[in-house]
Amino acid sequence: MGRAIQARLADQGVDVIGWDRDTAAMQRAAERGMTIAAHPRAVADAADGTVISIITEDGGVRSIFRGKDGFLTGDVRGMLFIEMSTLQPMTGRELAPAVEAAGARLIDSPVLGTIPSARDGKLYAMVGGKAQDVDAARAVLEKLTRKIVHMGPNGAGYAMKLAANLGLAAFIQATAESLALGTREGLSIQQMIEVLGDAPTANGWFAAKKKLLLGEPDDITLDLKTLRKDMLSAVATGALSGTGMPLSAGVLTALSAAVAQGWGDKDIGELVRFFREHMGQKLD
Amino acid sequence: MGRAIQARLADQGVDVIGWDRDTAAMQRAAERGMTIAAHPRAVADAADGTVISIITEDGGVRSIFRGKDGFLTGDVRGMLFIEMSTLQPMTGRELAPAVEAAGARLIDSPVLGTIPSARDGKLYAMVGGKAQDVDAARAVLEKLTRKIVHMGPNGAGYAMKLAANLGLAAFIQATAESLALGTREGLSIQQMIEVLGDAPTANGWFAAKKKLLLGEPDDITLDLKTLRKDMLSAVATGALSGTGMPLSAGVLTALSAAVAQGWGDKDIGELVRFFREHMGQKLD
Amino acid sequence: MGRAIQARLADQGVDVIGWDRDTAAMQRAAERGMTIAAHPRAVADAADGTVISIITEDGGVRSIFRGKDGFLTGDVRGMLFIEMSTLQPMTGRELAPAVEAAGARLIDSPVLGTIPSARDGKLYAMVGGKAQDVDAARAVLEKLTRKIVHMGPNGAGYAMKLAANLGLAAFIQATAESLALGTREGLSIQQMIEVLGDAPTANGWFAAKKKLLLGEPDDITLDLKTLRKDMLSAVATGALSGTGMPLSAGVLTALSAAVAQGWGDKDIGELVRFFREHMGQKLD
Amino acid sequence: MGRAIQARLADQGVDVIGWDRDTAAMQRAAERGMTIAAHPRAVADAADGTVISIITEDGGVRSIFRGKDGFLTGDVRGMLFIEMSTLQPMTGRELAPAVEAAGARLIDSPVLGTIPSARDGKLYAMVGGKAQDVDAARAVLEKLTRKIVHMGPNGAGYAMKLAANLGLAAFIQATAESLALGTREGLSIQQMIEVLGDAPTANGWFAAKKKLLLGEPDDITLDLKTLRKDMLSAVATGALSGTGMPLSAGVLTALSAAVAQGWGDKDIGELVRFFREHMGQKLD
Repeated sequence: MGRAIQARLADQGVDVIGWDRDTAAMQRAAERGMTIAAHPRAVADAADGTVISIITEDGGVRSIFRGKDGFLTGDVRGMLFIEMSTLQPMTGRELAPAVEAAGARLIDSPVLGTIPSARDGKLYAMVGGKAQDVDAARAVLEKLTRKIVHMGPNGAGYAMKLAANLGLAAFIQATAESLALGTREGLSIQQMIEVLGDAPTANGWFAAKKKLLLGEPDDITLDLKTLRKDMLSAVATGALSGTGMPLSAGVLTALSAAVAQGWGDKDIGELVRFFREHMGQKLD
Repeated sequence: MGRAIQARLADQGVDVIGWDRDTAAMQRAAERGMTIAAHPRAVADAADGTVISIITEDGGVRSIFRGKDGFLTGDVRGMLFIEMSTLQPMTGRELAPAVEAAGARLIDSPVLGTIPSARDGKLYAMVGGKAQDVDAARAVLEKLTRKIVHMGPNGAGYAMKLAANLGLAAFIQATAESLALGTREGLSIQQMIEVLGDAPTANGWFAAKKKLLLGEPDDITLDLKTLRKDMLSAVATGALSGTGMPLSAGVLTALSAAVAQGWGDKDIGELVRFFREHMGQKLD
Repeated sequence: MGRAIQARLADQGVDVIGWDRDTAAMQRAAERGMTIAAHPRAVADAADGTVISIITEDGGVRSIFRGKDGFLTGDVRGMLFIEMSTLQPMTGRELAPAVEAAGARLIDSPVLGTIPSARDGKLYAMVGGKAQDVDAARAVLEKLTRKIVHMGPNGAGYAMKLAANLGLAAFIQATAESLALGTREGLSIQQMIEVLGDAPTANGWFAAKKKLLLGEPDDITLDLKTLRKDMLSAVATGALSGTGMPLSAGVLTALSAAVAQGWGDKDIGELVRFFREHMGQKLD
Repeated sequence: MGRAIQARLADQGVDVIGWDRDTAAMQRAAERGMTIAAHPRAVADAADGTVISIITEDGGVRSIFRGKDGFLTGDVRGMLFIEMSTLQPMTGRELAPAVEAAGARLIDSPVLGTIPSARDGKLYAMVGGKAQDVDAARAVLEKLTRKIVHMGPNGAGYAMKLAANLGLAAFIQATAESLALGTREGLSIQQMIEVLGDAPTANGWFAAKKKLLLGEPDDITLDLKTLRKDMLSAVATGALSGTGMPLSAGVLTALSAAVAQGWGDKDIGELVRFFREHMGQKLD
């Protein structure tokens, strides 16, 4: 996603200075015109006011802000940080005062959308932060998005993103349990997918993934280990705020098993096959 | 649903002779032109070859076939029974030989669709049974449906219906957990519903139920006690065929709690509010 | 267990005529003095009034009663069948009328206890059936048990056994989750087991299995595929009678995964290691 | 528990200076000889080297250390803090550096045991912290405990306590599901409790709570809202460290429902009755 955002911004005439902890990925970005920085602090030093970050998990984000050579080790007075990762709300609430203490501003702005929609500037941004900071970010966010919704204070964007991904993970696991139920009763997967594609729960994700669900090769849009991390975050956030989430916990169990069995780098749609093949077996 | 089917068949020029265990409902059907029979056997006696049944649960269906004054207590040689309830596959597999031993034929043909789509003949039939029996049923089913899919032998239609309803129940409970997660982080329900309506999991059911989810009064399309019964059937069927279904079990827990708390007659969409109000609470 | 019961009965001076679908097992029993019958019916034909059965699952029991060469294919008038398997209550309620229609009587009498306790006549029998049939069985059951409890009508013994095994499976999975939780926080398994052995939940099973839990080889007292079958039965029974069982469903998920991954023949205590190794993984 | 610890220490000849956020409780402690302090800082100021804290949850503990008039707002150089609450490991790991930065030392030392065992100095301490700090705490801890186990660095004691309470909560919910399963099949609760009291999972907690489980009034040893908080902590800790815990999540669901329905102040054993009465219902 980071690369697609850089490409989109470049198309829109923005010069991007960037850093990636994966050196090979950074090299490829350089070939596409990105100026490379030595570390996060160097990105912030060179930026003319706005820094976007998007990585996989909470620990990594803490580290690029507060770790060795992190953003906040330099002079960031007046800067605006647009944090686009999918994190726990408490991480946003914890980082914001540190950023403000350094004289800068932080919003969380995770997005809904695919790589192609990022390339076309059609993402959907769910933003948490102070209203004036969200307004300050609009000029940049509008180059990337079709819609910007201000959900509330810092962390509110992350909360919305976790809620949305919870729904996606649940839909995939529900499909897994439906197909496992049906195939053990002798139904064909192909017919089941045809019917489910016409059910009131049919949705855009299912339409886009039919091929994969039928066993054909397909692009990876999001991998299982990342979706599992999002569900771990959702369940932990729910537990900390006082609600037991029985469906989410069930989904997390299946995702954790898939990752533990070595399926973490596969597309999230492969959870359906994993569940059928690895989480049950007919009685004799 | 039974009433809508009767009305549709009447519109299509079919004389319907019927029976309902709810006397008041039967009286209303009589006012709309249905000839009333004294019991299931009298329906079969008076029918000219085809009998449709649709009621709520497995025990009731066994009883209208095999109980006192049930279909099979009369002479049903040559009859075709089209069973449209949402049942466990094993019920279909258990009834079929009894029907055949009586010289008649049975198919299971549960449907996807709403009351209005039944009135318009736009249901979606998922059929289990022998191919020739399914073919024999087409003339009648075509008056009611936009699509007829033959899923496999007796019970296969029920298996597909349970798989589809599992997905619907999971979607509702996922929405419940998403909204509980978000509102405890301070998000507004209205905004969350707006975002979820634009997510890759957005679907026809969600679009139709936005008003209800926002707390406005709405029609009941399916009640919680019936959806719970379907999930009990799905979990039992999965358990008997050898798969633990962690998501479905989580959904069933929430549905069972809602019914036990007296919400059984409310619309399935109300599970979202039930979960937020009755299944968790912020820590101090 | 079947072999231990035969040995105990032989010690008590009872001549046992038996059959086993595993020919090798039957041969070993013959070497220990059991008279071999060609099939279940031949057992009933040769018995002088009482037939004991104990096998793994519902389908098998239906088959030895009602299948080809099953008990009920012969003349069983006046016989008493003591069925000691761990089954679903509905199986007991379904078989009893068939046995009675053949002029015989049936009780379900599953037991708590280990192989050594069977050898010593120290089992604990939970019995379902008519009071007079239970009384008729006492002479035989007393040779095998330290206690006989009449739980209710046919199926009640099975219900109690499922309830007891549910607790055992839950304890093992709770131990699995405790140890996974602790070891990911850096605790040593050895110390955790020491503390848990002193906690208010410490019990006889845990004391007997400490070695296994610490990774040392140990005898198999019950295998994972059998405990999984019992949990499938418990969850199906609960679903059919109207309760969602969230803990049991979670346990079943772990057991199903273990069996699907090839751990079905290992001791039930190995679920603890399976869960730690195959159902989760630290985040980066 | 705090009061029992104060009483025990007083019996052992220790002068206790204390503070409680519940003024009435503090007044009663004063009547029993405790010197009252105005706030946590005043406790630390007056103490001669060792401060014990035990309260309900993570936020409260953070507040008595770092909040207004908290321990760390005074001069605590050289002090040893023995924190005995049941918290998340991350809370211990987060507080320790703050305490050390103030020149003091912190260990976490939650305990297993009841009010009477505290009065008799028979608690079981699970300790996290540096070895020399644990050694420094022994003189005080030995007055309260029958055993002290050093589990690892800061937070390790909390991790062990959560793992132990997870097992207790699981046992109670398993009992709830067993009794719900059995009673819906017609068994009597009294007989089921008799059998379960003789099963391999029978334990000290069950023996102590038989009266309560049979519906008789009994003392409250731990309340449902506190056990729920512990399970929220366990599930959140597991989620943050990368494991989905299906059984724990199921238990948490039942506990959360009980608290949301107003049962939070009842004894944890009442979860069994709550589940039977409020989480399921027979089908018609």
